[in-house]
Amino acid sequence: MSEIVFETLAVRPEGGVLFAKIAAPPMNLLGPELVRDLVSLIQRAEGDDGVKVLVFKSADPDYFISHVDVTKISEYRAEAAKLTGEASIALLFRHLSASRLVSIAQIEGRVRAAGSEFVLACDMRFAARESAVFGQFEPALGTVPGGGAVQHLTRLMGRARALEVMLSAEDYDADLAERYGWINRALPADELGDFVSSLAHRIARFPGAGQAAVKDRVNAIALAPTDEFRRDSDLFGEGVRHPDAQAQIGAALKHGFQTRDGEMALGRVLGDLPDR
Amino acid sequence: MSEIVFETLAVRPEGGVLFAKIAAPPMNLLGPELVRDLVSLIQRAEGDDGVKVLVFKSADPDYFISHVDVTKISEYRAEAAKLTGEASIALLFRHLSASRLVSIAQIEGRVRAAGSEFVLACDMRFAARESAVFGQFEPALGTVPGGGAVQHLTRLMGRARALEVMLSAEDYDADLAERYGWINRALPADELGDFVSSLAHRIARFPGAGQAAVKDRVNAIALAPTDEFRRDSDLFGEGVRHPDAQAQIGAALKHGFQTRDGEMALGRVLGDLPDR
Amino acid sequence: MSEIVFETLAVRPEGGVLFAKIAAPPMNLLGPELVRDLVSLIQRAEGDDGVKVLVFKSADPDYFISHVDVTKISEYRAEAAKLTGEASIALLFRHLSASRLVSIAQIEGRVRAAGSEFVLACDMRFAARESAVFGQFEPALGTVPGGGAVQHLTRLMGRARALEVMLSAEDYDADLAERYGWINRALPADELGDFVSSLAHRIARFPGAGQAAVKDRVNAIALAPTDEFRRDSDLFGEGVRHPDAQAQIGAALKHGFQTRDGEMALGRVLGDLPDR
Repeated sequence: MSEIVFETLAVRPEGGVLFAKIAAPPMNLLGPELVRDLVSLIQRAEGDDGVKVLVFKSADPDYFISHVDVTKISEYRAEAAKLTGEASIALLFRHLSASRLVSIAQIEGRVRAAGSEFVLACDMRFAARESAVFGQFEPALGTVPGGGAVQHLTRLMGRARALEVMLSAEDYDADLAERYGWINRALPADELGDFVSSLAHRIARFPGAGQAAVKDRVNAIALAPTDEFRRDSDLFGEGVRHPDAQAQIGAALKHGFQTRDGEMALGRVLGDLPDR
Repeated sequence: MSEIVFETLAVRPEGGVLFAKIAAPPMNLLGPELVRDLVSLIQRAEGDDGVKVLVFKSADPDYFISHVDVTKISEYRAEAAKLTGEASIALLFRHLSASRLVSIAQIEGRVRAAGSEFVLACDMRFAARESAVFGQFEPALGTVPGGGAVQHLTRLMGRARALEVMLSAEDYDADLAERYGWINRALPADELGDFVSSLAHRIARFPGAGQAAVKDRVNAIALAPTDEFRRDSDLFGEGVRHPDAQAQIGAALKHGFQTRDGEMALGRVLGDLPDR
Repeated sequence: MSEIVFETLAVRPEGGVLFAKIAAPPMNLLGPELVRDLVSLIQRAEGDDGVKVLVFKSADPDYFISHVDVTKISEYRAEAAKLTGEASIALLFRHLSASRLVSIAQIEGRVRAAGSEFVLACDMRFAARESAVFGQFEPALGTVPGGGAVQHLTRLMGRARALEVMLSAEDYDADLAERYGWINRALPADELGDFVSSLAHRIARFPGAGQAAVKDRVNAIALAPTDEFRRDSDLFGEGVRHPDAQAQIGAALKHGFQTRDGEMALGRVLGDLPDR
């Protein structure tokens, strides 16, 4: 596979590894363009036997993927349907988890809501200790995470920490995310790129047959059934349409939500919204 | 809901949060009075739409909840039945886990056996690094934990650590409890109260609909079925009536078990009992 | 039970505890002799009501159990069948997990592949911080772990870390193994023996009835069904017979695999093999 520049992804092949850099200014929102490009990338990579590992990173040091564009829910869902036949990013993300491709997220900057769910769908995730920030804040807006976070976080960190993370809607740094099992490991920012690159190439050099069998067996235990992802996706949609959620989202938008500056400390912004 | 003083609980409302302080001298044993008051508190709070979060703490810096009063098992079980219809604290605790109320344990001092099971039933638990002590010692007396510990600990910390904790019947400090996933986090004692209060108010301010849906979805994955709690509760009852367990409990009572002084270092007391 | 010296195990009884020291020079490979002796030890210990706890340690400071002898797969499988009726070490190991005996691994040196799977089958495992090294490298050779690692690691550390450990085939030190939940705890080497001995005797002194019930209840939640172990065992056999795996194993043997010196840093050796 040769070098490809999508509108929101810069993709560089290197041996059996594809490095995909997310570049959707101003803040890497997950909108229709980025979903469309992720679908194209996954389709091409799965169709190319020379590709074994996908590494995702960000061109923006402050944002990996911020979250979905709440003004374009039906549009990005329509793009996701082009891969799975269903208008849901939960199923798109689950497709990635079930793929023969090994996926690794190299996280610098903010990954919240669907951003967090995207990295949770990757097979592994490593984060820069100094800069990565995690949040699963949908309940602060009155709805549930719709892209798989309930499924992944509950299995990774257990009932109490998963409830804390989602009900608090708070920001978590990389060290705490590691202690909670949200990510594989927090690493110093200046070691992260080399670590991930070296790991990706190492995995790409080993025989593929055993790896595919291991993924299948691990997924049989720890990847939730499609129906559970579908249900969470539906609940997100129902929740977000509720007048209380609409009012809360409206208030959040007035206080900086979905702006680059306003989301630098989103956890605090959400905590300062008027009571509901 | 206005301020209420139960016999063993002092309850203070503050916005959508109820702060309930456990005060059952001399050592916060879980006997009929405390179970009765917990049942009343939960019923009232669930019936009041203005209450969203319950915070439990202790009036005794050395004991949060020590464990059940082993001399009054049928009495406290009868009180538990007033909430759930079944004479089992396991089902009372599970009711709390399944409630629309968000429950947070702020732990200072000792939480062992049913005390540990109570905080495991809470949605979240934070402990004072300097003073909190955890133990799940029922196997040292010849029986199984009957209030849900097997279900929660195994899912939270995995097979090996859950077996270690229960079979060793040892005392664990807050840092180790955090590393094992027994609690969400250990915090410095002088920061704990502010942290929990701030978290509780933050959660209470967000819309309730998304939060309830998140609890339901997380519980569907990580809260064990009622039948499993019922089974553990029955096994505890059978175990405790066995002559070997009765002899071991008798020996423990002679060596300080169920006394305030004797349980300051209960892990050592149990280890020093004669062989069985 | 009196002192017994098997060919590859030195067994010393002390109260209700049996200390079994693995001594299969030159590198504690799991071959037919060690499997035969483990079967004998388990059968004898289970038949002796005075034995309650088994502690496994190694006579070799650099190797606890290195992995199976890849040149004698059918031979060691035949020995395993003498305990369970099926030619699979996965079922032998699962038998130990389901036993009334409490098993503790005291780990110094390397435990990789089936060595790791043996300690994962033990009820608890504690490792020397300075010397223990963990690896689950089967995918580097083109096959899946066949002795239960997929089942245990996925449940203990979650999907992402389990995939990382197996797909990377890398070496992990004791501290990281603790953070990932692979082991109960890493301890300073000079405290490890006393810690494990004291824990083993403590457990052996408590009544057996509650302990057996706790093991049963924990296993019902966290020990995978026999069929899953059987399936992994079959997949390992199929994988290892594939020409790609045979070629990779051949290359590894040429580069020091299955030699004492060559496996001191096996993670690096595997990473340096030619691409597949």
